[in-house]
Amino acid sequence: MIAHVEPFHATTIGRLAYELAAQGRDVIHMEYGQPSTGAPAAAIAAAHAVLDSEAGGYWESPALCDRIVRHYREAYGAEVSPEQVFLTCGASPAFVLALSCLFRPGSRVAVARPGYVAYRNAMRTLYIEPVELPCGPAERYQVTAAALDALDPAPEGLILASPANPTGTVIAREELAAIAEVCRRKGIAVISDEIYHGLTYDVEADSMLQHMPDALVVNSFSKWFSMAGWRLGWLVVPLHLIEAARARIANLFLTPPVLSQHAGLVAFDCVEELEGHHASYARNRELLLSALPRLGLQKIAPPDGAFYIWADIGHLTQDSLAFCRRLLADTGVATAPGIDFDPVEGNRFIRFSFAVSTPEIEDAIERMVPWFAAQGEMASPA
Amino acid sequence: MIAHVEPFHATTIGRLAYELAAQGRDVIHMEYGQPSTGAPAAAIAAAHAVLDSEAGGYWESPALCDRIVRHYREAYGAEVSPEQVFLTCGASPAFVLALSCLFRPGSRVAVARPGYVAYRNAMRTLYIEPVELPCGPAERYQVTAAALDALDPAPEGLILASPANPTGTVIAREELAAIAEVCRRKGIAVISDEIYHGLTYDVEADSMLQHMPDALVVNSFSKWFSMAGWRLGWLVVPLHLIEAARARIANLFLTPPVLSQHAGLVAFDCVEELEGHHASYARNRELLLSALPRLGLQKIAPPDGAFYIWADIGHLTQDSLAFCRRLLADTGVATAPGIDFDPVEGNRFIRFSFAVSTPEIEDAIERMVPWFAAQGEMASPA
Repeated sequence: MIAHVEPFHATTIGRLAYELAAQGRDVIHMEYGQPSTGAPAAAIAAAHAVLDSEAGGYWESPALCDRIVRHYREAYGAEVSPEQVFLTCGASPAFVLALSCLFRPGSRVAVARPGYVAYRNAMRTLYIEPVELPCGPAERYQVTAAALDALDPAPEGLILASPANPTGTVIAREELAAIAEVCRRKGIAVISDEIYHGLTYDVEADSMLQHMPDALVVNSFSKWFSMAGWRLGWLVVPLHLIEAARARIANLFLTPPVLSQHAGLVAFDCVEELEGHHASYARNRELLLSALPRLGLQKIAPPDGAFYIWADIGHLTQDSLAFCRRLLADTGVATAPGIDFDPVEGNRFIRFSFAVSTPEIEDAIERMVPWFAAQGEMASPA
Repeated sequence: MIAHVEPFHATTIGRLAYELAAQGRDVIHMEYGQPSTGAPAAAIAAAHAVLDSEAGGYWESPALCDRIVRHYREAYGAEVSPEQVFLTCGASPAFVLALSCLFRPGSRVAVARPGYVAYRNAMRTLYIEPVELPCGPAERYQVTAAALDALDPAPEGLILASPANPTGTVIAREELAAIAEVCRRKGIAVISDEIYHGLTYDVEADSMLQHMPDALVVNSFSKWFSMAGWRLGWLVVPLHLIEAARARIANLFLTPPVLSQHAGLVAFDCVEELEGHHASYARNRELLLSALPRLGLQKIAPPDGAFYIWADIGHLTQDSLAFCRRLLADTGVATAPGIDFDPVEGNRFIRFSFAVSTPEIEDAIERMVPWFAAQGEMASPA
């Protein structure tokens, strides 16, 4: 049997949202995990500058690999060599590359539930078996060393995401160290998804490379760098996997876009502009957090990072997709249904993305407060 | 065991070529299958125009999908719907997507030998078993209906490439129809690689869609459109695979670059400029074909299309990689060793790419004629 792979249900909401917008409705897009801002101005200028001069064949920018190496040194004190850095068309193929270097059909790989839908689905597509670790409020919705250690038999691999999607939670330094210890002891290979690094609020996120130099690390220009449409990301592999990764990237993907590599290199130095986006997310997050009591939403994941709020709506519905549809139809606010991220308990969760503008967040709150109040009255009639 | 995947040996030559160039040597790059020209001027202008205005999130251009549908109608009289068109970051991921929709670990899929190295290697990465059909001069280096029909047990799938890499040979209309008949009769799924369409010389290349509407077709902006560095391609799937392809593209790849999609749409109308490149390849091909006797190369594949000459050098060497290294070191002409394309007989073949400028071809011939003469003298001393 060819693997059955679930679609993204958020795209159902996304399509409805665009249909409504096409009909003239004023829609606020909080369903997708992407910045509404564009690339940094200097990165756009760099793209203009090379557009007329570069023929643009298959190309990997040595300067960009070097810049990424410098980033690991400066941001984390971690040493990697340029040969360990593989440039990809976004984080998605980096993740496929990592899975393919480490695992084979039938491999068992642990992953947090809730978690990013593509971890589970990409594994299923490659006939790798996801071993879902149920993570609730007690675990801050994250994998713990204890839960990993308790798996019997031990999995071959582990996928970490800190800050995580959909929860935004960060794994603390001590816990990462403890997870690394379990992985070393049991020979568990680690893929660490660090695409939300740079986007944290009052906490710090370590790179797994600080605790486990042979971890595979995925990163991207789509979140902090605000360049989702440029399709640029990277994978760091340990020395012993360089040859395997080189052979796979040549056969599965080839190189990322030339323009994006030039622009991405410049974007590394656009810290002020990008910190402006970060500050705007921080404001949006505060606004949304202060509004949650008025929405009747009490139970949320600790919003340490990324640009998400993962909220329990179990008192209002047991069908998150239908709930998101109604919310969109009634208020024009598009959100992501929990079932994408948690196939077991997701029907009582919703994910808000606050990577929109602050006026949009204010507007969304105003629209949602009366609507959630009405839902609450329907759910528990006096 | 994690699958062992061979690297591209052409990149060994490519790296050496760039090292030599960095040392000041005048290198002619005939090792890679990419145009030395850039994107069409109007496509570049379109990229400039949208660079400042588009935020650039995850996006699939409906206009580009529609334009591709129109292309199939106009170029081939084939009807596909926009929902059947999946935009990808080049042909490589389109090919992975196609394999993943159709096959599972252990599936047996027939493919011509010689053939593009990534067919075999991408399959091995996905634990799909390539069934290599040895194709020599008698079969014009291509799969035939008879050879396919003779496979026992029948394979689950077949990969076609016409024009092919490394040979450039085109499968004639009647043969494609006969192959389609075998596939229908035996339930063999077909992936047709049509990335060299538009680049033929005195022959026509049919789309497999004309003969088998449920074939999967891979195409790309990297060859005819001269936009390799823009990383844009597409996959056409039959109606019954739309849901499978949609789920897989969302989980494995997401969307291609926004700028490339805008530029690619415009490139469809840059026929005059692109026919200019085609005319230049035709001149280069003529020059190279007339020079082959002076190189002592008599046995070549019929160069129907693409921008390659696949030449038998068995009278000079049984180690094509070493031969290409020597040719590069002595003359500065970089070529691709046959072992990339044919793991069995490739050591006595070489691939020339003539997608360089005409002065470069003339220069390369001048350098190669005395070198090949000297090789011939060494190989068969009087």
